[in-house]
Amino acid sequence: MSQLLRVHDFCVSKDGFGAGVGQSLERPFGHADPGLMFAWAGATASWPNRTEPGGSRGLDDYMTREVDRNIGAEIMGRNKFSPQRGPWLDHTWQGWWGDEPPFHTPVFVMTHHERPSFTLSDTTFHFVDGTPADVLAQARAAAQGRDVRLGGGAGTLRQFLDAGLVDTMHVAVHDVELGAGARLWHSPQELLDQFHLDVVPSPSGVVHHLFWRK
Amino acid sequence: MSQLLRVHDFCVSKDGFGAGVGQSLERPFGHADPGLMFAWAGATASWPNRTEPGGSRGLDDYMTREVDRNIGAEIMGRNKFSPQRGPWLDHTWQGWWGDEPPFHTPVFVMTHHERPSFTLSDTTFHFVDGTPADVLAQARAAAQGRDVRLGGGAGTLRQFLDAGLVDTMHVAVHDVELGAGARLWHSPQELLDQFHLDVVPSPSGVVHHLFWRK
Repeated sequence: MSQLLRVHDFCVSKDGFGAGVGQSLERPFGHADPGLMFAWAGATASWPNRTEPGGSRGLDDYMTREVDRNIGAEIMGRNKFSPQRGPWLDHTWQGWWGDEPPFHTPVFVMTHHERPSFTLSDTTFHFVDGTPADVLAQARAAAQGRDVRLGGGAGTLRQFLDAGLVDTMHVAVHDVELGAGARLWHSPQELLDQFHLDVVPSPSGVVHHLFWRK
Repeated sequence: MSQLLRVHDFCVSKDGFGAGVGQSLERPFGHADPGLMFAWAGATASWPNRTEPGGSRGLDDYMTREVDRNIGAEIMGRNKFSPQRGPWLDHTWQGWWGDEPPFHTPVFVMTHHERPSFTLSDTTFHFVDGTPADVLAQARAAAQGRDVRLGGGAGTLRQFLDAGLVDTMHVAVHDVELGAGARLWHSPQELLDQFHLDVVPSPSGVVHHLFWRK
């Protein structure tokens, strides 16, 4: 297994939701507060979206350092790419990330609705239909020997987990309850048939869950 | 601060010793058992000396993954390089690591005794005298913009810590007592004037201490 499929810095609530209900352009995480959910990551020196020097270099930083290491492609769900649902009404929406997306690799957006590829800076977005295994094969070919990152959301992670395709997964669990939304799990214990698990409480308050394939 | 000075995977006993007494060719860690001290690291997938596939990818692996990331040079003490003490009697000793040393960068060995540089595979060893600041300046120049790793042993770490030159430091503390040897600290609390500290117990039994400069 030379090219891993890896999940990094995926944040869920204490009750297992990666996003709340009512996702929209204004609230991409629905009723969940992304500022709160990602605060632990934003405080680190290695957080890719950091705009000022400084930041912590402790345990949480070990997590955020890993996001881009040896990654050659990303796979994401349609709902991570866009707040729209159903067929593409037009092609003016090019993702949340502006003219310089933070991926710097090919990105494969899983969708049942066709759309031409396009490039922003050094990131090319491809829109692909197919099983998780099909999409992973395409991403691996594009990654040129490097690993593939699975970017979420929760529904996309579930598809790849259920297909047994994920090799390593880092999930940061918050001490907040959302009650409803996009569910990753009822309990991380559900995954122990497939994975080893280290549960590592961080001084920042989140609990890092580090899974790797048995 | 664009080029950090970093310590990784340095192992100490519960009472603060990085090596025991009686270091020799046969026992490079003296009366300490390196197999026991480094067992947590050797079990990980990313341990540089791993010869077979497999290995864990949990918390301990996050530590071993960092050893080589963005490193452009290493500084080590004379006692890490060689069991000999005093002037070089001959130049046949070329380190513990055989024809393919695991460094792959320039290595600066701190010694008061002159010796010509030599190259094994893609590692060049330089023998340098001077203050920690002098040696760090040479290593930074050789690292070509990347960070510098401080490889130990304990006495060398102390010199750089006392000079206020270390930016980040990872120390794995074991639950064994050595009683005597090469001391890094009496307690990690000594360093809290200079550093932030995350203390992270690992499921493997060691306690990772992650320091970063205030």
